Amino acid sequence: MARKKAVILLSGGLDSTTTLYYAKAKGYDCFCLMFDYGQRHKKELRAAVKLAKLNKCRYTIVKIALPWSKSALTDLAVKIPKNTGKIGKNIPVTYVPARNTIFFSFAASYAESIGAKRIFIGANALDYSGYPDCRPKYIKAYEKAVNLGTKSGVTGKKIRIETPLIALTKAEIIKLGRKLGVPYQLTWSCYRGEKLPCGTCESCLLRNKGFKENSLIDNKI
Amino acid sequence: MARKKAVILLSGGLDSTTTLYYAKAKGYDCFCLMFDYGQRHKKELRAAVKLAKLNKCRYTIVKIALPWSKSALTDLAVKIPKNTGKIGKNIPVTYVPARNTIFFSFAASYAESIGAKRIFIGANALDYSGYPDCRPKYIKAYEKAVNLGTKSGVTGKKIRIETPLIALTKAEIIKLGRKLGVPYQLTWSCYRGEKLPCGTCESCLLRNKGFKENSLIDNKI
Repeated sequence: MARKKAVILLSGGLDSTTTLYYAKAKGYDCFCLMFDYGQRHKKELRAAVKLAKLNKCRYTIVKIALPWSKSALTDLAVKIPKNTGKIGKNIPVTYVPARNTIFFSFAASYAESIGAKRIFIGANALDYSGYPDCRPKYIKAYEKAVNLGTKSGVTGKKIRIETPLIALTKAEIIKLGRKLGVPYQLTWSCYRGEKLPCGTCESCLLRNKGFKENSLIDNKI
Repeated sequence: MARKKAVILLSGGLDSTTTLYYAKAKGYDCFCLMFDYGQRHKKELRAAVKLAKLNKCRYTIVKIALPWSKSALTDLAVKIPKNTGKIGKNIPVTYVPARNTIFFSFAASYAESIGAKRIFIGANALDYSGYPDCRPKYIKAYEKAVNLGTKSGVTGKKIRIETPLIALTKAEIIKLGRKLGVPYQLTWSCYRGEKLPCGTCESCLLRNKGFKENSLIDNKI
């Protein structure tokens, strides 16, 4: 019997890679979807390709332009801030307007086209940066909308958005990933996308926290 | 006082152009958003640009790739069907998976970035092709989701999706447009995008119906 198909939103970071391994472990035939949206950390994208290939998954990179984005992730004129000790308290300058909404919409289109009923995203609402588009109630509302607005949704083949990491801490994610055999050394988290992770951006800090709490050394740093 | 901003999803067709004129008449500062999504009727896009310029509106064309789309609008291997007399009864082969969902997500991102609280779309659920992403309940659900998933939504500056044509017949849309001064000769509806409108695709048929019911001659044909 053919395996059930799933679209995996794969950025090449710690969370989405763990999610890919989770979906694989659940027996899904994984179709990885990646975005080149002008992010300065292109290394993340190269990591995603490497990880998809390593897992013998089909993958597609969608190039999108967000000419209006003033996010620090896409606009080189906006500095990536160092940690202020307030992770998740306010919406940070690294927020890209409606980013997950855009990613989901392509994922829904892709899922519908290949007949996949699952979209997996590594969204996390615990050790996260406070992005509104990572919150469970947003994801639930989006899932509802997308099933009303797609052929698959109205013909009974509803798409479900799976968020296996939503309620886990970064440490718990890494713990799960290690059980699943995630090669974390291949993932990339740093927003700056330079030769080595900066260790000071929010993404680096959250990653480091997760490794420390597992008494592990992140050989990325 | 600065005028309120609105993002207008402008395809260059009859409905979206009427919507642009409607929003202008309501006093909005209109930012037109267009998509080059590989549609075979590129003439539509050129019409949109012409119409935005004519109205001195800012406009942005977003180029998106939907490599998986098997729609007759994007895949030259799929024929555009002649009318079967069942307009709106079934979802036709011109359906592009999650197209409006994708368009809305970019519109939300754009609206949020420029501080617009309105997105206008010429969706119509009466004389239409049965696309699920034109139905009011989908649009309401999407609006709800997007306000949960964006910074503007969670900080109280909610985005509203305006669908002034949703309950109008094609004839009523044209009637409204004529009052608003819409230059219909500049709009483009035909899915085939050849030199002249084919007169047989769904889009041509719906357009012709509207003109006939107004006892008007569409000088496009």
